[in-house]
Amino acid sequence: MGIVGGRQQAKLRNMAEYLLGIDLGGTNIKIGCFDTDLKLIGKISVPTGTDMGPESIVEEFHAVSSELLKRHELSLADVSAVGIGSPGLVNTIKGIVEAAPNLPLFKNVPFRDLVAKRFGKPTILENDANAACWAEYVIGAARGVDHMIMLTLGTGIGGGIVSDGKLIHGPTGGAAELGHVIIYPAGRSCPCGQNGCAEAYASASSTVARATEAVQNGAQSSLTTVLEAQKKITCKGVFEHAGNGDSLANEIVDGTAKALALLCLQMVKTTDPHSIVFAGGMIAAGDALLDRIRHFYKQYIGRLFKKDHLRLCFAVLGEDAGITGASALAQTACKS
Amino acid sequence: MGIVGGRQQAKLRNMAEYLLGIDLGGTNIKIGCFDTDLKLIGKISVPTGTDMGPESIVEEFHAVSSELLKRHELSLADVSAVGIGSPGLVNTIKGIVEAAPNLPLFKNVPFRDLVAKRFGKPTILENDANAACWAEYVIGAARGVDHMIMLTLGTGIGGGIVSDGKLIHGPTGGAAELGHVIIYPAGRSCPCGQNGCAEAYASASSTVARATEAVQNGAQSSLTTVLEAQKKITCKGVFEHAGNGDSLANEIVDGTAKALALLCLQMVKTTDPHSIVFAGGMIAAGDALLDRIRHFYKQYIGRLFKKDHLRLCFAVLGEDAGITGASALAQTACKS
Repeated sequence: MGIVGGRQQAKLRNMAEYLLGIDLGGTNIKIGCFDTDLKLIGKISVPTGTDMGPESIVEEFHAVSSELLKRHELSLADVSAVGIGSPGLVNTIKGIVEAAPNLPLFKNVPFRDLVAKRFGKPTILENDANAACWAEYVIGAARGVDHMIMLTLGTGIGGGIVSDGKLIHGPTGGAAELGHVIIYPAGRSCPCGQNGCAEAYASASSTVARATEAVQNGAQSSLTTVLEAQKKITCKGVFEHAGNGDSLANEIVDGTAKALALLCLQMVKTTDPHSIVFAGGMIAAGDALLDRIRHFYKQYIGRLFKKDHLRLCFAVLGEDAGITGASALAQTACKS
Repeated sequence: MGIVGGRQQAKLRNMAEYLLGIDLGGTNIKIGCFDTDLKLIGKISVPTGTDMGPESIVEEFHAVSSELLKRHELSLADVSAVGIGSPGLVNTIKGIVEAAPNLPLFKNVPFRDLVAKRFGKPTILENDANAACWAEYVIGAARGVDHMIMLTLGTGIGGGIVSDGKLIHGPTGGAAELGHVIIYPAGRSCPCGQNGCAEAYASASSTVARATEAVQNGAQSSLTTVLEAQKKITCKGVFEHAGNGDSLANEIVDGTAKALALLCLQMVKTTDPHSIVFAGGMIAAGDALLDRIRHFYKQYIGRLFKKDHLRLCFAVLGEDAGITGASALAQTACKS
């Protein structure tokens, strides 16, 4: 008998050894097929139809998954479990998507069971931030530690907490809403209805909003010409102008880093992670961001609490974190 | 054969069915003997000699426990495990008391193993706030829920977090330092070296300090005559004067309640508890305190996050929480 790869071996042994990880976004549906070592076999991304209801989305999942598996000479029979990362308010315990701003037809949908029924496989439903967090915990930047936090810096701030090797869900899956930890009680208003949320300062969009407001209010800055010429400022632009020495841009970036440092500090006092992993588009700023967060963290933390074990770092899995984490969670569904 | 009680039955069956719970305080050592249903059989309190080193304290534990057991016609042979709640920085994983401000001779003491060796029993070491929290979780105010937090309002603010039925420890036992969550980043300085800690506003001593400073700075208040006559203001006094309509006292109590409401909100965004249980001397203020915390919590929480499951309540176990929780934790040592 000749040498056969893992895929063929699994087929020969007639075992379902592959995992499907689905990242349901407001813009795209990404589906990845992984082996049991969480090695990516292949992935597909298709646009999300925001007018699609839950049943249509499930059909799309099924069609796209079948296509993906076929490309890799596999079929659903080779799949042991399915994991889904969903945006919005997800009750992970009951497997329900309670609401998702970018998917208006999702209201209290028993999405886990719909997918499980259509695929005929054990299925796990998580919120997307937790799925990505789990990926960085299992095979990413926080691999090897049992206590970590992930903060995804995008339009908002998504959070995930792993304590003693388990995702913190709370009673209904509403835990780890870390973007809405209040940093400045009398601070900027947040669309959630609170004032001074971390997200109102340190998300990519809030960083842009603070810069735009300052320029519009007449602050002197090299960003003024950008706003005039391009009608908008980008987060990347703010970091670039800060790097070039613009003092307003530096003040804005400091504001972002200060809010994140305070958020890190709150988490150290709460679940005391070994690692805090930053993800999302803003981490393209690199050390200019990370060094500042570290600087302000050291400034804020009390001398009684100078933890030597806290590590602040960037995520390493990029856009695949969602499908990877969903697959890794699917794997736990097989074991349980 | 006549009717025999549980104690005699256990003896007849030659089973070690009792638990010792030890609450090591800076002022007193409290030891309780409990049955496996966590019913208190008896307790003793003796003064702590602050000049006593770890070995002397362990000997004292042994002597007092023996005396307690003897009073109840029991002996160490009837004890299955020992639990200890210790003040200070406790590494619960390694069983080490790293430092305890009121016990100057305790520096990186392997206290769990010292006690286990002297007693010849499985032993668990916890920090005192976690032990009390565990008691309220198992048989107290948060009985029946899997996600809860306890905040002990005394000289400082002690915290404990139970998530999915487990105490949150972090990698070394340093988690749940909830008194040092920063509420107001530019706020009052805290002895820990940070600014704006919850403890710097909402502990009993900070409540008194804020009232005293305001009176000394010339604020009009009925507390002025108290300070002049008695040279000090008490926390109880602040609440009494607030109840009698004094506006400064009401402002101070509001400050305490606001800081606690913000701390509750941070915890809802983090581990999302079902119940937050307040303990410590300040809860004698009753509804005057609890209603205000609820009021400000509702004011601060975003409309997107109006949780219907959060319950704010008072602890019910009082001074026995420490020994009860230590015993309940000792029970888990037997099971593991």
